[in-house]
Amino acid sequence: MLEALACCGNPSSVHLEGRLARGLVERARRQLAAVFLTDPVNVTFTSGATEAAALALAGRNLQASDVEHECVRAWTSSGLETRENGRIVITDPRRSTVQLANSETGVIQDLPVGLAVCDATQGLGKIDIGHLSRTVAYVFVSAHKIGGPKGVGALVCFRGSRPEPRIRGGGQEFGKRSGTENIAGIAGFGAAAEAAAQEVADGVWEQVGCVRDAMETAISDTVEDVVLFGADADRLPNTSCFAAKGWKGETQVIDMDLRGFSISAGSACSSGRVKASNVLRAMGVSRNLAACAIRVSTGPATELTDVLRFAETWGRCRNRVRNRNRAASLSRKDADAVLRGE
Amino acid sequence: MLEALACCGNPSSVHLEGRLARGLVERARRQLAAVFLTDPVNVTFTSGATEAAALALAGRNLQASDVEHECVRAWTSSGLETRENGRIVITDPRRSTVQLANSETGVIQDLPVGLAVCDATQGLGKIDIGHLSRTVAYVFVSAHKIGGPKGVGALVCFRGSRPEPRIRGGGQEFGKRSGTENIAGIAGFGAAAEAAAQEVADGVWEQVGCVRDAMETAISDTVEDVVLFGADADRLPNTSCFAAKGWKGETQVIDMDLRGFSISAGSACSSGRVKASNVLRAMGVSRNLAACAIRVSTGPATELTDVLRFAETWGRCRNRVRNRNRAASLSRKDADAVLRGE
Repeated sequence: MLEALACCGNPSSVHLEGRLARGLVERARRQLAAVFLTDPVNVTFTSGATEAAALALAGRNLQASDVEHECVRAWTSSGLETRENGRIVITDPRRSTVQLANSETGVIQDLPVGLAVCDATQGLGKIDIGHLSRTVAYVFVSAHKIGGPKGVGALVCFRGSRPEPRIRGGGQEFGKRSGTENIAGIAGFGAAAEAAAQEVADGVWEQVGCVRDAMETAISDTVEDVVLFGADADRLPNTSCFAAKGWKGETQVIDMDLRGFSISAGSACSSGRVKASNVLRAMGVSRNLAACAIRVSTGPATELTDVLRFAETWGRCRNRVRNRNRAASLSRKDADAVLRGE
Repeated sequence: MLEALACCGNPSSVHLEGRLARGLVERARRQLAAVFLTDPVNVTFTSGATEAAALALAGRNLQASDVEHECVRAWTSSGLETRENGRIVITDPRRSTVQLANSETGVIQDLPVGLAVCDATQGLGKIDIGHLSRTVAYVFVSAHKIGGPKGVGALVCFRGSRPEPRIRGGGQEFGKRSGTENIAGIAGFGAAAEAAAQEVADGVWEQVGCVRDAMETAISDTVEDVVLFGADADRLPNTSCFAAKGWKGETQVIDMDLRGFSISAGSACSSGRVKASNVLRAMGVSRNLAACAIRVSTGPATELTDVLRFAETWGRCRNRVRNRNRAASLSRKDADAVLRGE
């Protein structure tokens, strides 16, 4: 990315500086294509998964489930049913868009052959995506979910007709997406995709899954009534979504932030808004319990000691909150006893 | 930008890392707003001027002239007349989009009060834009034209109704443009805008104009039949567009590139395509002469010696090309004489 930031050329210019810039973009395109087992010409760089979703979905009225990201639901009808374990029931693959893995619960979907569109943003770089080129027509992804920069994504068109360009002008990206390329972001995306694919091949994320499982065991031991979501389905190895009654997710985020842990409540992407997760509601979770859910994400750099320290801190806070909630409904004397932990 | 690249947070997250990321985006928004003399809430960051143009123009069927950039012409009808000096005749400002300055000739337009949309991509950071907030409803700009990174731009909405969002999802950018923010690009844009405005205030570009004028004088002295475009109108101080008959623009770009000069022919933004400039054609220039036009852009770092060296090199090449062209139509003996320079 630093090399690209120092490159003053425009990839569409034919002079030396332009060719250097073009080289950076096309190297990244080859890196993405290699990860997706496809031809570079099938890779269209965008400003993120959200733009790629619009390019893939707008005007097509495909079916989606309510667990999809808002950038998908903005363009689809909500016809697909979601089971309690988070798995989506897909009836007409050619008219459907289905995520590879969920952003809040980490639940992984079985993708049917012939699927129209797949949001692989959460799955890329964490699980194998080799099957996508054989099953799906369009896939979209984002760089910042795999350690790349924010503000760059891609639509990969394995088959089917060419998408209708939504950003028009100079004809960049083979006419599918105009505008001078974000060469630093694209270079970073290419490098991140290559590195992430290597990590998946090296089994790095299996270790991440072990650490996550240890955290969930510690949490379940400390807080008896914790509810883990999606734990009965295949999940991404780094995602954990759980709730403890009576402690709002948004309050947990603030409580944990004060103690040095950065977690999220509901969907992290929506600016400022905090509401009961549509993902959990679609899985049949009550509005009250969904409002108490948080998502904890880990990565290869997260140590076992980190997650155990989190579990201990979170459990202690939760028990204090519960005692306070109980005390609020008791006489003064009984309340004092509860708050002293008797 | 380096600070932003090291910032792992998502601006929509409420925890510490998220707040740090949000701070970077909002600082940049204040920097842009200060340059445009407006409130930060009026600034919407996009992936570039091309996306901002689509956000400002799609579905509105505004009128434009043929000298506008392709990202404007993609969404408009070509109803506005262009004079030979490059100035646009604007009849109904409220239904028109007009550029502040042209990307190929540098010709600056007088913008009427009430203008619907202005492409200020070429003017920002080179001439005063203080009048835009009083005259125009929407303005769009790009970072990489003012020394910022490629792949980030903005739409500034001074007045009028809110644009219809085209990239939908999480509701970022006050609901006008969803998608996780390109925080490094946005931070770079803010810093570049602040620095560029300071340069304009400091009169840096007046010096650039003197250097450009010296180059044009040297070129006219060396090549008698050179045609300078837009020279009768107000122009940006760094842009020069000219043609010499019989020497195709695309050939000039290659010839000059081999000699260490990076110039452009026609519109630089269009991937790979080289065709006679629609800008010059709209100004009444013949197809043949338009095909021989080049654009030379300079900047505050361009020295007088640089442009004089360019003028000398370009003039020498042109005279060699002309001699070769003449020789091709002569007898062997006369041709040898011409090529020996007799």
